[in-house]
Amino acid sequence: MQSDNNRPTSQDSLARLAAVIESRKPANGGDPEKSYVARLLHKGPDAFLKKVGEEATEVVMAAKDAEHGGDASKILYEVADLWFHSMIALSHFGLTPAQVIAELERREGLSGLEEKALRKAVDRAEQEKGSS
Amino acid sequence: MQSDNNRPTSQDSLARLAAVIESRKPANGGDPEKSYVARLLHKGPDAFLKKVGEEATEVVMAAKDAEHGGDASKILYEVADLWFHSMIALSHFGLTPAQVIAELERREGLSGLEEKALRKAVDRAEQEKGSS
Amino acid sequence: MQSDNNRPTSQDSLARLAAVIESRKPANGGDPEKSYVARLLHKGPDAFLKKVGEEATEVVMAAKDAEHGGDASKILYEVADLWFHSMIALSHFGLTPAQVIAELERREGLSGLEEKALRKAVDRAEQEKGSS
Amino acid sequence: MQSDNNRPTSQDSLARLAAVIESRKPANGGDPEKSYVARLLHKGPDAFLKKVGEEATEVVMAAKDAEHGGDASKILYEVADLWFHSMIALSHFGLTPAQVIAELERREGLSGLEEKALRKAVDRAEQEKGSS
Repeated sequence: MQSDNNRPTSQDSLARLAAVIESRKPANGGDPEKSYVARLLHKGPDAFLKKVGEEATEVVMAAKDAEHGGDASKILYEVADLWFHSMIALSHFGLTPAQVIAELERREGLSGLEEKALRKAVDRAEQEKGSS
Repeated sequence: MQSDNNRPTSQDSLARLAAVIESRKPANGGDPEKSYVARLLHKGPDAFLKKVGEEATEVVMAAKDAEHGGDASKILYEVADLWFHSMIALSHFGLTPAQVIAELERREGLSGLEEKALRKAVDRAEQEKGSS
Repeated sequence: MQSDNNRPTSQDSLARLAAVIESRKPANGGDPEKSYVARLLHKGPDAFLKKVGEEATEVVMAAKDAEHGGDASKILYEVADLWFHSMIALSHFGLTPAQVIAELERREGLSGLEEKALRKAVDRAEQEKGSS
Repeated sequence: MQSDNNRPTSQDSLARLAAVIESRKPANGGDPEKSYVARLLHKGPDAFLKKVGEEATEVVMAAKDAEHGGDASKILYEVADLWFHSMIALSHFGLTPAQVIAELERREGLSGLEEKALRKAVDRAEQEKGSS
């Protein structure tokens, strides 16, 4: 999606999108009257966190429709909305999608990721057993 | 997908992670006994969709803690978990993170994204006004 | 809250609220132009299910604020919103809050409820252990 | 709380359930080793708030299955789980289901509830229009 001949910059898509979100912060001159992102950032955490919960629900609904024979492409739009609003939250707290990707890579192998998930599952299993 | 200075992009990382998830599908020999991802894919949609809802809630909780002075880095782990489980859902339905990124780029400018969000907000405004 | 001298009917609050929601169904003459409930029922499942996800997120945010010293009473409004939108979903699918209460009573003792939760936890523990 | 024909009301049932939850608080001797509710209360807000988000997602999934022809009764169990975990949150913050019911009654008519919802919708409409 990014190559040395059809893209002017080596910066990737998520980083570019993060830069646009960053420019919409009130401190950077983002105008709540003109920009949806500026408006969410201006309203504060509850505004965009509510959207994270809402978009996650929309991903679930689109996926259930697809499971029952509906158009799977709708899931793409909902996941895009979910990631986009997650990125507004990241931006507000001074974090970047690159750090999320780094965290995903760190866990990967996927040995890492699975290990972590399995470890958590086993920990929970031990804990539940101990307490039942 | 390499940039002109050979620095890997987010797309590279997500594509690699998507390939690992793909290899965990039952049809590709993923073993539910050994892999957390294979287990979720084996159980079917409700298993990983429930995780999408759960991880979205964890992003919200970590962000609220950060808002009240807590460590913001916890948000990174929760967003990583949220994106990761979204990717399992994408994989199950034959979709890829590259398509999500393409959708985000398509909307971007951010003119695009904001336009869409504003259009939706205005549509809703019109609709609500009409019906109140 | 209900006694033989200050309430005209033995029907309880949730049943009364459910009856009002029922009357807002399109088939019962509910007018989407005049009533919020009629509008949600008219739009169909995705409209009110999205609200269930959204209101659950608002309960979580209000509770996190209270945990960090905020006003706990806000939780009441959000739980009221959550239960209210759950009741719209129940109504759409021909179910009643009385049936939900009956299910809660059935599990109660709380022996019942805890037994069920513990059984699920133990089942999951067994399952996770087996597959790790 | 008994009605004039001695039929127990929803309020009675919820009050009884709330009393059981109350007795599971660490301060009241609830034992995390023996009781699921005591364990959630002992772990603190994130534990039961995560369940609120998770159970809301399960209500949504069960409702989507019913929308596509599945058994609607599954929605009952999921709403029961959602309300039950909401009640654990209420209890932790010193609130009661009776207060939630009172809030629902206060809004009712449904004039009240619809008025509030419509007012919010109109407010949002005005706001969105103004900022687009």
